[in-house]
Amino acid sequence: MAKRIVIVGAVALGPKAASRIKRIAPSCEVILIDRDDLISYGGCGIPYYIGGDVSDLEALYSTSAHVLRDMDYFQNVKGVKTLIRTEAIAIDRRNKKLKIRNLDDGKEKEIDYDKLVLATGATPVVPPLPGVDLPGVCTISNLHHAKAIKDMVSQGKITRAVIVGGGAIGIEMAEALTDLWGVETTLIEMMDQLLPTALGNDMALPLKKHMEKNGVRVLLGERVNKILGNSTNGVQAVETSNGEIPCELVILSVGIRPNSSMAKEAGLATGMFGGILVDKRLRTSDPNIYAGGDCVEIPHLVSGHNLPMPLGSLANRQGRVIGTNIAGGSDCFNGTVGTFCLKTFELGIARAGLTVKQAQESGFDPVHTVVVQADRAHFYPDMQLMYIKLIADRKTRRVLGIEAAGLQIDAVKSRVDAVAVLLGQGVGLDEIATLEVGYAPPFASAMDIINNAANSLDNIIAGYQIPIDVIDFLKEFKENNAQVLDVRSPVQAGPFVEKYGQQWLNIDQGELQARIAEIPRDKPLLLVCGSGPRSYEAQLIMRSQGINNDTKNIQGGIGMIQFSDPDFAP
Amino acid sequence: MAKRIVIVGAVALGPKAASRIKRIAPSCEVILIDRDDLISYGGCGIPYYIGGDVSDLEALYSTSAHVLRDMDYFQNVKGVKTLIRTEAIAIDRRNKKLKIRNLDDGKEKEIDYDKLVLATGATPVVPPLPGVDLPGVCTISNLHHAKAIKDMVSQGKITRAVIVGGGAIGIEMAEALTDLWGVETTLIEMMDQLLPTALGNDMALPLKKHMEKNGVRVLLGERVNKILGNSTNGVQAVETSNGEIPCELVILSVGIRPNSSMAKEAGLATGMFGGILVDKRLRTSDPNIYAGGDCVEIPHLVSGHNLPMPLGSLANRQGRVIGTNIAGGSDCFNGTVGTFCLKTFELGIARAGLTVKQAQESGFDPVHTVVVQADRAHFYPDMQLMYIKLIADRKTRRVLGIEAAGLQIDAVKSRVDAVAVLLGQGVGLDEIATLEVGYAPPFASAMDIINNAANSLDNIIAGYQIPIDVIDFLKEFKENNAQVLDVRSPVQAGPFVEKYGQQWLNIDQGELQARIAEIPRDKPLLLVCGSGPRSYEAQLIMRSQGINNDTKNIQGGIGMIQFSDPDFAP
Repeated sequence: MAKRIVIVGAVALGPKAASRIKRIAPSCEVILIDRDDLISYGGCGIPYYIGGDVSDLEALYSTSAHVLRDMDYFQNVKGVKTLIRTEAIAIDRRNKKLKIRNLDDGKEKEIDYDKLVLATGATPVVPPLPGVDLPGVCTISNLHHAKAIKDMVSQGKITRAVIVGGGAIGIEMAEALTDLWGVETTLIEMMDQLLPTALGNDMALPLKKHMEKNGVRVLLGERVNKILGNSTNGVQAVETSNGEIPCELVILSVGIRPNSSMAKEAGLATGMFGGILVDKRLRTSDPNIYAGGDCVEIPHLVSGHNLPMPLGSLANRQGRVIGTNIAGGSDCFNGTVGTFCLKTFELGIARAGLTVKQAQESGFDPVHTVVVQADRAHFYPDMQLMYIKLIADRKTRRVLGIEAAGLQIDAVKSRVDAVAVLLGQGVGLDEIATLEVGYAPPFASAMDIINNAANSLDNIIAGYQIPIDVIDFLKEFKENNAQVLDVRSPVQAGPFVEKYGQQWLNIDQGELQARIAEIPRDKPLLLVCGSGPRSYEAQLIMRSQGINNDTKNIQGGIGMIQFSDPDFAP
Repeated sequence: MAKRIVIVGAVALGPKAASRIKRIAPSCEVILIDRDDLISYGGCGIPYYIGGDVSDLEALYSTSAHVLRDMDYFQNVKGVKTLIRTEAIAIDRRNKKLKIRNLDDGKEKEIDYDKLVLATGATPVVPPLPGVDLPGVCTISNLHHAKAIKDMVSQGKITRAVIVGGGAIGIEMAEALTDLWGVETTLIEMMDQLLPTALGNDMALPLKKHMEKNGVRVLLGERVNKILGNSTNGVQAVETSNGEIPCELVILSVGIRPNSSMAKEAGLATGMFGGILVDKRLRTSDPNIYAGGDCVEIPHLVSGHNLPMPLGSLANRQGRVIGTNIAGGSDCFNGTVGTFCLKTFELGIARAGLTVKQAQESGFDPVHTVVVQADRAHFYPDMQLMYIKLIADRKTRRVLGIEAAGLQIDAVKSRVDAVAVLLGQGVGLDEIATLEVGYAPPFASAMDIINNAANSLDNIIAGYQIPIDVIDFLKEFKENNAQVLDVRSPVQAGPFVEKYGQQWLNIDQGELQARIAEIPRDKPLLLVCGSGPRSYEAQLIMRSQGINNDTKNIQGGIGMIQFSDPDFAP
């Protein structure tokens, strides 16, 4: 067993690996080093600290028992020697030495290792824009940044902010600035949707609407040209392709880049995203060097491609695996399916696997459905609508991805997690159709929304259901005057008929057989009901009776239309 | 393809199968028959109707779009011919005829079938006690019972009730009667715990405490001898082994029995619990007869044994499988892992797989852990403690079961579902340790409680952690004056030291190395901290230094002690 283990990086993976090693192999010497003086913190908590949900910065580097995780803690409680304000600068693999530099006195020295762990994390990408160095322009990558931003905001120095980048951190920061502090916040994303690597545009649109409803200005498909201001007064505005947005704070959250330069210089293999490559035991190409967390690439278990997956949860789980392996055990980390969740204001979002676009890029033939259903029994008082998109490969029926949204955020996560844990093993659609998730009226419907999503997708693949997405529907309806047939009751459909006139025909599904002569036969029909099942049934009836074969069923029905375009309904 | 399909039973599976058949094979004739006049209802909603969460009975047999699911609905919307108040009395398999009787006029006739579906459900077991026929003694098995009980309760006729049977229905009914109506309710269970087939006694104890806190009197290990009263005044009391309990209402919820007598008489194979046996396509031993729902037995995918699993969720999922198969498709229902959830007052309970006892009976060598952890990041404001028991086989490390409880009920369900969906395929402990469930601070900790539960169980199997259950701890502490070493801070431990004196020693884990001489070496120690991890670390430190090898770590720590015995803490 290794005698001295040196761990570079003490945020998530490093401390976890260090503690695990000392627990099961207490005779090992473990040295944990970090450039920062604040270590072992929950970086994911930064938006909640800035937004005021977490009042003290210390909470982010304390244990659940309120013990500060500082140098003394690691020394006294964990038996781990900790060097802070210390940078690792070079690895001498042949002699198993690590060169380090004390950031306070600049002194360098070499320390021997038997096993080395690289937990060097990642660095926020700073786009090469004029003005990125101005005071008031920052990234979110450590607790010092967090404190600086919170100080500015809480002292009332910020009335307007611009966030560049519509990924998770940008979205969380938008809520943090808007909700408690009332900062007038603009979120700018270069792509035409929020969370472009996590959601399809149909699921991203309601997210945007929800943020806008809560006061965030969201600009999509817009590029930042430069940041305006001067070194005395700091940032004053952001200039985009469409004009200037005045602000006193700019947060750059356009992505992160694995910190792998030292590894590269030492000749360790890295991947196409610049992350260190590791095997299932989390060893790098040098068997004496392990790596994990934000600085590595891991296999995506659906696409098969390596990619960085910078999440504190994965880093912690990898930390234990590395600790076990170094301490003489045997443990594996197989990869990721990209499970992810996010809360913004009242809305919960969760997803796993591939988006439709990613699935296409990975060589699959993705088919998808969007299902809207109550998250509890529909008769249960505190039920809320939930929105799920399920994606599968047409030929193999392998489930490729799931995206979900809703107001009861744990309920959203529960559906995605239950599918996520199966995605890596190539689960088929039929298994999701009978997936045995828990049921009682306060928790779910008897046919849970994920069962129904699988059934709906099965119906699409079988050709029973011909679907149209809400985004396509809105376009067809608004731009091409497409004809809608609403099969809800006249009470429900009435206001839509009144607002949209002849373009919105209503025949109650219960009367469809009797009023079959009224169904237009000469043009395509877009079918709608509350959430989709009745209009699907109407589609089948029309087809079986040869009335109109050119129908499409609006996925998620009125529920999804209103979620995507709150102004659509009368 | 079959031409005429007759379906016996129109509550959950029957209507689902009927609708599915008509959707994908509209030329089939489908006849749905039921003894009752109310059909296609959510029986699981009855406690919520009685308890007032659901105000109208109609809600339980309406669609989510508020359309009543009655005879007309099935005829007009689904194209299914429906015969209510009609009993199936005999199957003539040779001639493929079903004899039916109209319950209003007593007339009998035979109808031909090409395929027959048995969805005959189950009947509540009525124990053979003196007095079970008295007015005011009832079971919960259909909407008529439900309405009768609600009428009595809402008219103020019931001030005291006794529920016999501590299963899910008994527990849900106890809340229904107590919470809104203030009925003085006593729940009697013959076994020594609630939910004896779903939970271990350690997880059932907090459930009992929670119900008691909310005003339900819970009597365990107690037998009902007779029910007292007369036909004029109805029930007046329940006599148990320990005395009389006055009451005006008795609800019998001691279990249900599959309705399989007609199937048996027709020579169809049944199992040891009396349920009809079916294959994966849900065909009985006669390939022209399908069966599903509460009247069948299905394989338990962990134990391998057949058993009835009477849940509306499974019935609905089976209904679609039967419908697909009859309509010419091919679909399977593989079995169950017993996923189950329950809300009582504020507490959510969920479970899947086998209990420790069931695992032993099935030939496994179960080892378990109990872990207590916040359901969100510990620094996130609305976090609550969650309690999880994880069970695995010692040798194979196969995960056998999971039980969970907590106040944020969706969060509880989410953890169980994520494990439940893997249980049937023999998932190993190591996979749960790195299970990729969603993470962000408003949803979970970076190391989710299920990852940590798997790690804790791994530590126990590896011999690093020597555990003691809370129930055993309470016994050892109260009856045998066992010595506790509390490794929390003096502020946290102080009140316990004051209350329990020398039996409750406190050394802060951070000072353990420095104060190692103070640790008693001559007697067994029960180690405790807030939830278990620090006392586990203390256990390792003591062992590695040879101080005391006879220590046990209290599973779930103070969190689990207080959950199980709220009066224990000072």
